[in-house]
Amino acid sequence: MKVYLDNNTLTKIDPLVMEAMQPLLTEQSGDLHSLHSFSSTARKLYKEAMDKIYASIAASDNDDIVITSSGAESNSMLFMGVYISQILTGRRNSIIISQRESPSIMQIAKMLQEQGCKVHKLPINSDGVVEAKTLLDYITPRTALVSIQSVDGESGAINPIEEIVEICKRYEVPFHTNATYALGKVPLNVQDLGVDYLTISGETIHAPAGVGALYIKEGNSIPPLIYGSRSHYEQYRGGPVNVAYSVGFGKAVELAVDALEFEMEDAKELRDELEEALREIDGVTPLIPWSLRVPNTLLISVEGIHSEQLLYELNRVGIGAYSHTIYPFGDWEKKSIIEALGMDSSLKHTTVGFALSRNTTKEEIDYTIKNIKEIISYLKEFSACTTKESK
Amino acid sequence: MKVYLDNNTLTKIDPLVMEAMQPLLTEQSGDLHSLHSFSSTARKLYKEAMDKIYASIAASDNDDIVITSSGAESNSMLFMGVYISQILTGRRNSIIISQRESPSIMQIAKMLQEQGCKVHKLPINSDGVVEAKTLLDYITPRTALVSIQSVDGESGAINPIEEIVEICKRYEVPFHTNATYALGKVPLNVQDLGVDYLTISGETIHAPAGVGALYIKEGNSIPPLIYGSRSHYEQYRGGPVNVAYSVGFGKAVELAVDALEFEMEDAKELRDELEEALREIDGVTPLIPWSLRVPNTLLISVEGIHSEQLLYELNRVGIGAYSHTIYPFGDWEKKSIIEALGMDSSLKHTTVGFALSRNTTKEEIDYTIKNIKEIISYLKEFSACTTKESK
Repeated sequence: MKVYLDNNTLTKIDPLVMEAMQPLLTEQSGDLHSLHSFSSTARKLYKEAMDKIYASIAASDNDDIVITSSGAESNSMLFMGVYISQILTGRRNSIIISQRESPSIMQIAKMLQEQGCKVHKLPINSDGVVEAKTLLDYITPRTALVSIQSVDGESGAINPIEEIVEICKRYEVPFHTNATYALGKVPLNVQDLGVDYLTISGETIHAPAGVGALYIKEGNSIPPLIYGSRSHYEQYRGGPVNVAYSVGFGKAVELAVDALEFEMEDAKELRDELEEALREIDGVTPLIPWSLRVPNTLLISVEGIHSEQLLYELNRVGIGAYSHTIYPFGDWEKKSIIEALGMDSSLKHTTVGFALSRNTTKEEIDYTIKNIKEIISYLKEFSACTTKESK
Repeated sequence: MKVYLDNNTLTKIDPLVMEAMQPLLTEQSGDLHSLHSFSSTARKLYKEAMDKIYASIAASDNDDIVITSSGAESNSMLFMGVYISQILTGRRNSIIISQRESPSIMQIAKMLQEQGCKVHKLPINSDGVVEAKTLLDYITPRTALVSIQSVDGESGAINPIEEIVEICKRYEVPFHTNATYALGKVPLNVQDLGVDYLTISGETIHAPAGVGALYIKEGNSIPPLIYGSRSHYEQYRGGPVNVAYSVGFGKAVELAVDALEFEMEDAKELRDELEEALREIDGVTPLIPWSLRVPNTLLISVEGIHSEQLLYELNRVGIGAYSHTIYPFGDWEKKSIIEALGMDSSLKHTTVGFALSRNTTKEEIDYTIKNIKEIISYLKEFSACTTKESK
């Protein structure tokens, strides 16, 4: 049996998404801008997809949504745009993020700091969330941007975005949230949240890797990241439009919103079943309180067992899980979840995560529970033996 | 009959490209970085694709090729990287482009000039090509970058890249060429050309719109445009890898190189047939000498007939051609081809182009010839009538 539980990294493409893209990958689709008739089908499908994307986050017609090649591009576009229009011009002088943002944000923040921009990183509390009040230590009217993720992709913790936005509004500081791990997991409404900018991405909602979007609230404006001809299709981004992936993304957000109730009830039930079974194992600690976490995610620490060992053994029986502690690609002082939570640092390399999707079945979860119990017991025994031998 | 002759804007996706991408769009492909086994097929296919891309331009193993979402991204990445690492740091102070670069380059050059960087634009001669010696008027050891396109996408004119590179080497100035309209039309060998950076793109070689690449010669280095986790798969670019399009792009460059002889002989024969037939029509002038042009492109001026009128009538009989003179998206002082060639400015709005592909058939060209003759004759008659009436 193969069980894929790494859905906060990459999801399986939904067959309905593939079906929506197929005509644009096999027929001549045509440039959206050209005058000849080859373009008209592409234009129609593209417009329908954009309507779905606007609807999925409750954007208004006067807001802008830029289709990008990933959430990372959306984040880079915003931060680089703020750098060029606000920081370099001397209008504003700092940005505020959290200690736990995605690599795209951690890395561009690092570059900005190297270029002389002040970067403040808010901590998380022992429940794994950013507390709005911590913003007050750093925010000033000269802050160029506050960017706090809606949901932590590793731990599943949900941040109090509305409270944070309230403070930003008081200081007239633009606010951005990376909602890549929130879309389809919790309700997402840009009007209710009051955000200025919001990032979503395809690979976590059963669209292909290679498409994302940046929401830009009416009244805000940033320079492009990718230059080129601009049109009313892509006011903010040059180069040919990836119509196929845009249409796939439109279908994917529609499906994600439709499946929200299922995620919050049925998928959650499976996650909870897994969580309860693992909680019974000696040395296993789930890391974020149940009520503060998206319904698909479970991050545990297994005392005395190295993450890589556990992932390896799980992979041997066909189970794909994740661990960010062994991620080898520099996250510029991104705090490991164990350190950020203020837990014993000996647990730093013991975290393993499971991210379900709407495709996950009860059989898969039962299989996972059975195997993980056996593997942990085996690894503990093995570890006990080697400890004895080495004495 | 439908005849598509706008292949310098967008080509039909080759069925073999679609076939190569299909498994990655329907099966769970897996993140290239993850430890679990879901990733291994994707990794293998990605590696094979990269090998094909390296081979297609004769890149060496020590060079870098970054897969991007378009040629426009490749160009923006390079120019923004040069801006951040060379201009902002005060190391160098100017860039040199031509008057006829793609919108992505014209637009980012405009931004750089607004930020205080000197931008020089080389003219083309009456044959439509940039003469290497014009570089000598502007190049200095403090020039940060020279970027001249290999082929003009509107006119098909081929620039003398090797001669230009020779001058850049003398001044130790990095050289970039946008080879989007050259790949698959003329031999392209980065070793022979001696370029430091080179852009190619998918949409002009029967891959989907939404993939491109930036070649970076060994010894050169630029900061990323899209930040994020970096790995040996994407050293220069964050965000999830679009494995499906990368694999499609690999197949597309392989096919483009395989078809090079066909393009240069058989496709050229059809283009020449069209050219000879149109040349016979009174008032029609092909714009670039035959020997200085890629084999698939023909740009004409039709005296007394507005481009938009001719395109409209062609579209009515199912023929898709192009005209950049009616492109409504600001090309920042990009000279119109008529002005740049030093021709009578009354001809400015009379250009129409035809870009064939390896799929173009003799029947399609015969149909085009027949129709274009009728349409031009009809439009001239109509124009003569209205002129008389208005007297």
